[in-house]
Amino acid sequence: MTFKILKKDKSSLARLGRIETNHGVIKTPFFMPIATMGAVKTLDPRDLEELDTQIILSNTYHLMLRPGVNLIKRTSGLHKFINWSKPILTDSGGYQVFSLAKWRKITEKGVEFSSDIDGKKYLLTPEKSIDIQLALGSDIMMCLDECVAYPCKKEYTAEATKRTTRWAERSQKSKIPASPAGRKNQKSESQALFGIVQGSVYKDLRLESAKDLVKLDFDGYAIGGLAVGEPRKKMYQVLDYLTPELPEDKPRYLMGIGKPEEMIEAIKRGIDMFDCVIPTRNARHGVLYKFKMQNEKCKMRHVKFKVELSPTSKIFYETIRIKNKKYKNDLSPIDPNCHCYTCQNFSRAYLRHLFMVKEPLAQRLATIHNLSFYLEMMKGIRKVIRD
Amino acid sequence: MTFKILKKDKSSLARLGRIETNHGVIKTPFFMPIATMGAVKTLDPRDLEELDTQIILSNTYHLMLRPGVNLIKRTSGLHKFINWSKPILTDSGGYQVFSLAKWRKITEKGVEFSSDIDGKKYLLTPEKSIDIQLALGSDIMMCLDECVAYPCKKEYTAEATKRTTRWAERSQKSKIPASPAGRKNQKSESQALFGIVQGSVYKDLRLESAKDLVKLDFDGYAIGGLAVGEPRKKMYQVLDYLTPELPEDKPRYLMGIGKPEEMIEAIKRGIDMFDCVIPTRNARHGVLYKFKMQNEKCKMRHVKFKVELSPTSKIFYETIRIKNKKYKNDLSPIDPNCHCYTCQNFSRAYLRHLFMVKEPLAQRLATIHNLSFYLEMMKGIRKVIRD
Repeated sequence: MTFKILKKDKSSLARLGRIETNHGVIKTPFFMPIATMGAVKTLDPRDLEELDTQIILSNTYHLMLRPGVNLIKRTSGLHKFINWSKPILTDSGGYQVFSLAKWRKITEKGVEFSSDIDGKKYLLTPEKSIDIQLALGSDIMMCLDECVAYPCKKEYTAEATKRTTRWAERSQKSKIPASPAGRKNQKSESQALFGIVQGSVYKDLRLESAKDLVKLDFDGYAIGGLAVGEPRKKMYQVLDYLTPELPEDKPRYLMGIGKPEEMIEAIKRGIDMFDCVIPTRNARHGVLYKFKMQNEKCKMRHVKFKVELSPTSKIFYETIRIKNKKYKNDLSPIDPNCHCYTCQNFSRAYLRHLFMVKEPLAQRLATIHNLSFYLEMMKGIRKVIRD
Repeated sequence: MTFKILKKDKSSLARLGRIETNHGVIKTPFFMPIATMGAVKTLDPRDLEELDTQIILSNTYHLMLRPGVNLIKRTSGLHKFINWSKPILTDSGGYQVFSLAKWRKITEKGVEFSSDIDGKKYLLTPEKSIDIQLALGSDIMMCLDECVAYPCKKEYTAEATKRTTRWAERSQKSKIPASPAGRKNQKSESQALFGIVQGSVYKDLRLESAKDLVKLDFDGYAIGGLAVGEPRKKMYQVLDYLTPELPEDKPRYLMGIGKPEEMIEAIKRGIDMFDCVIPTRNARHGVLYKFKMQNEKCKMRHVKFKVELSPTSKIFYETIRIKNKKYKNDLSPIDPNCHCYTCQNFSRAYLRHLFMVKEPLAQRLATIHNLSFYLEMMKGIRKVIRD
């Protein structure tokens, strides 16, 4: 993996870049739709390509439980198994072990947990997570980390953060073969590995975590443990002091974020990568995104982001709750300026009808639109930085 | 609507034909995927076009309840509302009133029922059903009928069948404006209307029903009240004596049928049109269809139907229960000879995984494949009759 910065914004830390992977180029900043179990809910790979999806995210935790890594190995990797030829990022399983598992026990070695599916016990170590991600063949792998809840006492946060750093070091060692006859295959050379900065909202812990990880020289740096319940202001504060400490020439990934305005605030603070269930989950519940036109002159789709890279947030879009009765007879599309398949072909009234009668097509059409909104927004932001 | 017979089979009553409607040509014999509420479950119109779907079926009962006919009228018809430009057949609502409604009361006037959605009372008359179908703008409309259960006493069957015929006459009168200044719009001229033969398994009642309806001169004739629980043999017997009584130059529609072997048996007996929930419902439950190759020489997809138009049934296909453990590691497609999107891109193992983790994409990919099987089968049968 290589990363190049093509342009920097003059009024903020936002940057335009380009990541090259074995499965193609990704323009930064970007958003990753979530394909937890190897599929973006309701969509097929063709839909994703039509939406100009650059990269998707899959979850190690889910895939190790079902269908299990052996099957995917036999298919020669996740790309082939799910028929997706563009880049894939896999998380380490850390976050899910802490948020989904029925039971867990953390030791220096790793985390023992019982699956939320069948109660079976598993041990996930930094080495095992890397082994699995190597077998999945993802383009960007993540180190196993411990994501503490919010709020979390400083003492425990310090302990967990240091352990996360030690696990990151072990992850990296596990990826790089010890000798030319090492156990890993050549392919691992092309699979990037990102370290994850933890430390909750404690500035000294965050800075120490970043410093220690930067020393280990990862391919990129993620910021974990945010958007777990802390006030939004605190999240921005963490980004304010943290991103300047991360290497300029490596991509920065804010994990699990977020709402459109949060992503814009983060991009202004130097973040390049995002993932979130919000657009797809909201779609399945009939909550749809729509750009607000600032004024009549805003005929170019991208112009409005110029305004947005300056302070105010949540002024450039609105949400539509399509099940609301007021859309019953609304024959206009969700967004007349949107080029997605849904807006080009169907009315709000039809979408509402599909939701009301629980037709599965409802969730599919809504997902197409919401992802289109998110990906178009990112395109717009890239255009603004470029111009 | 016009119907032309292009070729007749020499060894059976099977025929190859062509129906012309305002929304395009339909080659007969054909199968109609079910779009009950204005959508084939999990598919969008693009999927249906890719599958070479010639016509879909929507349900008057469901659409009159939700979203209601006024909205569809305002969109200038069902085609535009659901964004489907090819032909649509709508049933009359009769079958659903008898199978779904919580409560119903039949009088000469029509059928009063309470909706299975909210318990609200409705009165559906032959005239009202036609009014709704005219507003929907379907290419083929059906007369309101009473579909009796199986078994049903002869006395009641006779009463219901005669009422169905009287309703058919009223339906026809309701469609044709009484004078040039009549209340119906011009469009109704291009919307075909089919009568429905009833009479359960009573030969004399069936023949009388057919004779009376033929006198009324409909655009086509449907056979209702079959596959409602009677032995399959009895169904074929009804077809044996009934189809020769229906006009040669009008399309014949066997309602709600069926399994592949049933459709073949019916085609041999002179039936041209089918609809059934089986392929799509089975798909959603992970039951998938696959052609069996008769022998190694059967490389052409269609050759095998030659055998099938002669007696034996259910020898040309098999079903795959994809959730079965034996497909866990099966990296082959459902059917290596199938050209559908699912078979061209995904393995049984991946499909099984999607079903096991309840990913919505599972049902979509399975539906695409099963409809492809049904529509390819019909193509194959048409080719056999032609050659």
